[in-house]
Amino acid sequence: MKPHIGVIGAGKCNEEISILAEEVGREIARRGGILLCGGLGGVMEAASKGCSEEGGTVVGILPTDNPMDANSYVEVIITTSMGHGRNAIIAQSADVLIAVAGEYGTLSEIALSLAMGKKVVCLKSQWNIEGTYPVETPEKAVEKAFSFI
Amino acid sequence: MKPHIGVIGAGKCNEEISILAEEVGREIARRGGILLCGGLGGVMEAASKGCSEEGGTVVGILPTDNPMDANSYVEVIITTSMGHGRNAIIAQSADVLIAVAGEYGTLSEIALSLAMGKKVVCLKSQWNIEGTYPVETPEKAVEKAFSFI
Amino acid sequence: MKPHIGVIGAGKCNEEISILAEEVGREIARRGGILLCGGLGGVMEAASKGCSEEGGTVVGILPTDNPMDANSYVEVIITTSMGHGRNAIIAQSADVLIAVAGEYGTLSEIALSLAMGKKVVCLKSQWNIEGTYPVETPEKAVEKAFSFI
Amino acid sequence: MKPHIGVIGAGKCNEEISILAEEVGREIARRGGILLCGGLGGVMEAASKGCSEEGGTVVGILPTDNPMDANSYVEVIITTSMGHGRNAIIAQSADVLIAVAGEYGTLSEIALSLAMGKKVVCLKSQWNIEGTYPVETPEKAVEKAFSFI
Repeated sequence: MKPHIGVIGAGKCNEEISILAEEVGREIARRGGILLCGGLGGVMEAASKGCSEEGGTVVGILPTDNPMDANSYVEVIITTSMGHGRNAIIAQSADVLIAVAGEYGTLSEIALSLAMGKKVVCLKSQWNIEGTYPVETPEKAVEKAFSFI
Repeated sequence: MKPHIGVIGAGKCNEEISILAEEVGREIARRGGILLCGGLGGVMEAASKGCSEEGGTVVGILPTDNPMDANSYVEVIITTSMGHGRNAIIAQSADVLIAVAGEYGTLSEIALSLAMGKKVVCLKSQWNIEGTYPVETPEKAVEKAFSFI
Repeated sequence: MKPHIGVIGAGKCNEEISILAEEVGREIARRGGILLCGGLGGVMEAASKGCSEEGGTVVGILPTDNPMDANSYVEVIITTSMGHGRNAIIAQSADVLIAVAGEYGTLSEIALSLAMGKKVVCLKSQWNIEGTYPVETPEKAVEKAFSFI
Repeated sequence: MKPHIGVIGAGKCNEEISILAEEVGREIARRGGILLCGGLGGVMEAASKGCSEEGGTVVGILPTDNPMDANSYVEVIITTSMGHGRNAIIAQSADVLIAVAGEYGTLSEIALSLAMGKKVVCLKSQWNIEGTYPVETPEKAVEKAFSFI
């Protein structure tokens, strides 16, 4: 079974965060992981791009019922039609999660993951939630995540 | 349409928190609100008790498929069988939410609510999440919550 | 714990079916049951009207995130934001279900209920699914439903 | 975007049905489709085996929160923790569905799919639901399914 790594973050992000997220995606693919994400833009798209370009499998768990909402790097599209409720499915399905920056939606995924007993690695997080693992670089984020598997 | 007030908090709590939660429930009933909660013990049970004893309607949105998991003050039992995924339904269905203390599950409900554009009033919260409204007493919590409706 | 009776049927229906659904709702209220339904129009609205006018509690489990989508007889509104996925919550939360006529959505609820081991009473059903209980009148539908509790 | 083909059927099945389901899975892989299923045994496992052995991608959308519940041919595991509620996610995420025999759970997926406007091809179905496409062989099932994409 390949490790399922959840990458969570906002649907819009600046260039700096985008570069970090893309590198997280690349590193997951290099290590043979499957990338799970929310399938939309911003951090999700950047991570999907990195993973896909490195030959990894990208799974997008969308909030809507429309597969066209997925970014173009997603290979497996799950249209939950559950809105923010799909955040729980991402948290549940990931063996471990990496949060890159993020807004309220990301915070909900961090908290859901912790409530489910999952490990969460945080890169450039504005939240400092007890129980998460803050790191400084994409490489360290993925290394830390894989250390829990 | 009666206001639907979500009360969120942990499934276990100490006596001090329990008394506060019960008073929140009472005050919701006095003001004619319907109390939505996760239906289990701790803060949920105390709030349910207060609301029920004051003649209010208590709705428990359970994570399990077993109605017997509901505390004895719940009148309407929704067995979602969705685990933590039911947190999104509580957040979505409440017009406004009151968090009483709380653990990771509560944090996920706060974040989901904020992501959905809902107002969240926090009583004795260990989290200090931007965008929430901290208050000092149960009466002020309910008063603040109703001010948003 | 009051019996939770699910009433399922299409969002649009003719006058004959509407009259039957309303009588099902009335009879549920007379027997002290809580009516669970999908909260929309057609069979759901007619049953809600009957139950509400007889003083019963009506719970609407909506597919959308908008409480204004509920028919005007629903007292407790659950906005699941899950689309057809909410059908599973209706099936799971009801102690027993009564199908009044119905389209594909109703068929999915009948099948989900049977898969969950629930009893389903069918009034004017176009489907003849093994394991369901066909009846001829609203009174018999509710009587049969309560016999399983 | 690769076609996402849902294969639905019971968690236990006899040898005859298993052979048919495996061939459905093989044919989906040969045509470049991604196989979506419930991830468990019986029809799901046989179809997963066929697809996986032919080099295709198999996605298992589990009812539980435990990835170990997936059959050994599933590559992408989604642990919804939603019980039968996950049936709606399978129906929603598939571009088109193939039902192989099946029990109540399968019937619920057929009905949900039809309610969502999806096409459903039925092989050895005990149900004869208006709007579905009955076929006689695995090859014809997959051919018919791909004709809708």
